[in-house]
Amino acid sequence: MREISFHLNSNSHLTLQGQIRYFLIEAIAKQQLPMGTKLPSTRALAKQLRVSRNTVILAYQSLESDGILESVSQTGYRVTQDNFIIEKLAHQQVLPTDSAGIDWQNRLNSNILALNQIAINKPENWRDYPYPFLYGQSDMSLFPFSDWRNCMRQAMTRKLTEKWTDDLLANDDRELIQQIRERLLLARGIQVEKEQILVTAGAQNAIFFASYLLTNRSSILAMEDPGYTDTRHLFSWLAKNTDYNQVKFLPFSAQQYPDGLDADQIGNVSLLYVTPSHQVPTGVTMSLENRKKLLAWADAEDAIIIEDDYDFEINHQRPVIPSLKSMDRSGRVIYVGSFSKSVMPGLRLGFLVGAPEFIEEARKLKRLCLRHTPGNNQRALALFLTLGYYDVHYQRLKRVYLKRSAMMGEILQNNLHGMNSGQDWFIRPQQGGMSYWLQMPKTIDSRALAQSCMAQGILIEPGGVFFQNSADNHHHIRLGFSS
Amino acid sequence: MREISFHLNSNSHLTLQGQIRYFLIEAIAKQQLPMGTKLPSTRALAKQLRVSRNTVILAYQSLESDGILESVSQTGYRVTQDNFIIEKLAHQQVLPTDSAGIDWQNRLNSNILALNQIAINKPENWRDYPYPFLYGQSDMSLFPFSDWRNCMRQAMTRKLTEKWTDDLLANDDRELIQQIRERLLLARGIQVEKEQILVTAGAQNAIFFASYLLTNRSSILAMEDPGYTDTRHLFSWLAKNTDYNQVKFLPFSAQQYPDGLDADQIGNVSLLYVTPSHQVPTGVTMSLENRKKLLAWADAEDAIIIEDDYDFEINHQRPVIPSLKSMDRSGRVIYVGSFSKSVMPGLRLGFLVGAPEFIEEARKLKRLCLRHTPGNNQRALALFLTLGYYDVHYQRLKRVYLKRSAMMGEILQNNLHGMNSGQDWFIRPQQGGMSYWLQMPKTIDSRALAQSCMAQGILIEPGGVFFQNSADNHHHIRLGFSS
Repeated sequence: MREISFHLNSNSHLTLQGQIRYFLIEAIAKQQLPMGTKLPSTRALAKQLRVSRNTVILAYQSLESDGILESVSQTGYRVTQDNFIIEKLAHQQVLPTDSAGIDWQNRLNSNILALNQIAINKPENWRDYPYPFLYGQSDMSLFPFSDWRNCMRQAMTRKLTEKWTDDLLANDDRELIQQIRERLLLARGIQVEKEQILVTAGAQNAIFFASYLLTNRSSILAMEDPGYTDTRHLFSWLAKNTDYNQVKFLPFSAQQYPDGLDADQIGNVSLLYVTPSHQVPTGVTMSLENRKKLLAWADAEDAIIIEDDYDFEINHQRPVIPSLKSMDRSGRVIYVGSFSKSVMPGLRLGFLVGAPEFIEEARKLKRLCLRHTPGNNQRALALFLTLGYYDVHYQRLKRVYLKRSAMMGEILQNNLHGMNSGQDWFIRPQQGGMSYWLQMPKTIDSRALAQSCMAQGILIEPGGVFFQNSADNHHHIRLGFSS
Repeated sequence: MREISFHLNSNSHLTLQGQIRYFLIEAIAKQQLPMGTKLPSTRALAKQLRVSRNTVILAYQSLESDGILESVSQTGYRVTQDNFIIEKLAHQQVLPTDSAGIDWQNRLNSNILALNQIAINKPENWRDYPYPFLYGQSDMSLFPFSDWRNCMRQAMTRKLTEKWTDDLLANDDRELIQQIRERLLLARGIQVEKEQILVTAGAQNAIFFASYLLTNRSSILAMEDPGYTDTRHLFSWLAKNTDYNQVKFLPFSAQQYPDGLDADQIGNVSLLYVTPSHQVPTGVTMSLENRKKLLAWADAEDAIIIEDDYDFEINHQRPVIPSLKSMDRSGRVIYVGSFSKSVMPGLRLGFLVGAPEFIEEARKLKRLCLRHTPGNNQRALALFLTLGYYDVHYQRLKRVYLKRSAMMGEILQNNLHGMNSGQDWFIRPQQGGMSYWLQMPKTIDSRALAQSCMAQGILIEPGGVFFQNSADNHHHIRLGFSS
């Protein structure tokens, strides 16, 4: 028996049993444990590692059932002598490849190269900060882990796995489509057929498909400024794609437009992106009147509207204002829904709703781009919706977020002078959402402020990133309260 | 207590407990069970449904813990009277939206519209056919469900979920990147840094990003004909994107090129897509000599090669022929890897390997298109790799597929006359892969053959779909043996 020195790591992402398994596999791969080598007894190894003997037994047994170890006596194991099993594990000696003499700058599609994608910088260890006022990071202590695991476990039975592991081309999970139709869209006042829904890899992916498809020659794309950063990137990219298209930025502020975008200011536009439930980043909710006016504008201009309706329910207003799509009688509104934002970021599932002709083309583009979204997550989410876990979770989040929102509003009100009364500080009155947007005196630089807050354990988001022209807009910050 | 009539469905995708929960939630949503309604006792309902009383108790308890039911006595439950909980469940009456008077044909990006995407048609219930000779459908009886569920369960602990649920922008799971580097790429003779790897939503997504990025003005894209159908769609789409690009189809046949594509036939090309391990659809493996020649051609022509290296290991040849990427000393090869094909279709994870400059731009495009791939699947796959389950599973598949391949080869050999000896029937000698490609006499129409086979419970794939010009190539079929 060879001397091998195990050690366990309490920070590992693996279980104890997993660590033992991993250690053995690596040692076999690196030929530190050649074929046929006898391993320490389970008792000896358990003692050495100070773990329960059962943990070692289970690790050995799992390797035995995979054919990597063979049992040689009552309790003894050795590395298999079957080369077919071992050769797959063994590492090879290889030469480093790459990379000389190619001028990638000239090689690559210039549209992407020219794109200056900026992003909110946050430290990777943001969860270690005591006061992370960041947007879009959900508070995982509110997530119903056991319900979700339950759904995932059910989605992974063999019968269901056969269904989701089939290569679906660009088709979606039927149960999920049905739940989106019946549970989400009907609740939002939207009644559509299943041919009008496309599951996407998150809301970003939905906006990508919709705006790509709707940018034809001489299209004029428009969005608010400040607005959602990644849509601005997308639109800028699409405009650069050909010489025929352009982007129009509609100046927006919570002070000037407390009821949301005013259709009068839009003008000649063929595709408009809006977030009526909560304008990004100011959080302004578009009033019913402005929504009606916007739809009338679209009819008059023969324009298409992409409605990104994220987190519409995190709102104090009762009843919730109807979505544009639910009032759309001419089919001009493309609706983007998401499961990622507040509920479960990281899952990357969203959907598009539109006319069947539009969805059919979007499905073609989706097939080219990524075929379909993962079957296991689609099915687990379908179960999460079917069994009502989603609704329950959403209501819980809403209750908590509205409470936090009220609390933050009160604190801001009590601590900031001249609020709402002058030009220096502006906070819009609370309507819901998951963040506050502050306009500060122009003498304050949000980036410097964020730096000095960070030193005190407080994370805030400088607002320049939301503006087409960041340089003139460093006197805004966003304070999220979901984390 | 109201009379409600439950029924259970043995074909449901829900568990018994899930069905009871779903039934109650729907009844509450539709106000068939208004707030405060008393429910049947667990004993009575269990008797009515002929299920264990425990099943009913668990369903009631889960609804109670969600606040949807309230317990009113030892065993009695009623619907909650808390409107906040119920309002989320309740369905609304809505008007149908959509859709009049928009001329979508004129609205939509003409590149996509013009795209005639064809696909292999297979019946949705193909698993019910006794002889499904289809490609790319894996035999789920070989899939290690319990190992995979184990990894998924570990990926869903709170600690890890916090990591994957964080909105990653376009970043990838670090553990997965490490496993791709150390376990997959090193085994394939490819040594790269982590900045040279991008996780994608499957191989299709990787090919999409790479070919989009590498199509600049006046690019000449090339691939074999017959070749991988969805790359043909992609390339045709990219060529239509601007007036400056074109696609070149390189005539290929297993008879003429038994050692794979010959670089001499390519000519002036800027981007070449190849599948050297198994040419799609003929299955021909490119010889080492032809690979060297291809790399020399790329250097001379200053061309870039996309190497789609799916299922390289399902091969009789020992040792496996090195990948193009492992021999690439000038960084011209972009490597596409996949986890989907034979191992777990439906999971939709793949990766791109290339120069850091290239990967950086691909990450930008990925962020625009879909941000990142789902965190839970990335992490579960990382564990599946780390713990060696992937290698063990792959070796098992390989053993089974090589056996099936030999068997099918023998049967074909014994039953088809004139094989390899004339122009009428051609089957290439077996080299591995997961399918046979048959060229038949031109008088046989593969579509008619597929129809008549189907009537006898046999599914085969007509080969026309792989050709740029299907019409002249209906005398080929592909027989898969993975299902």
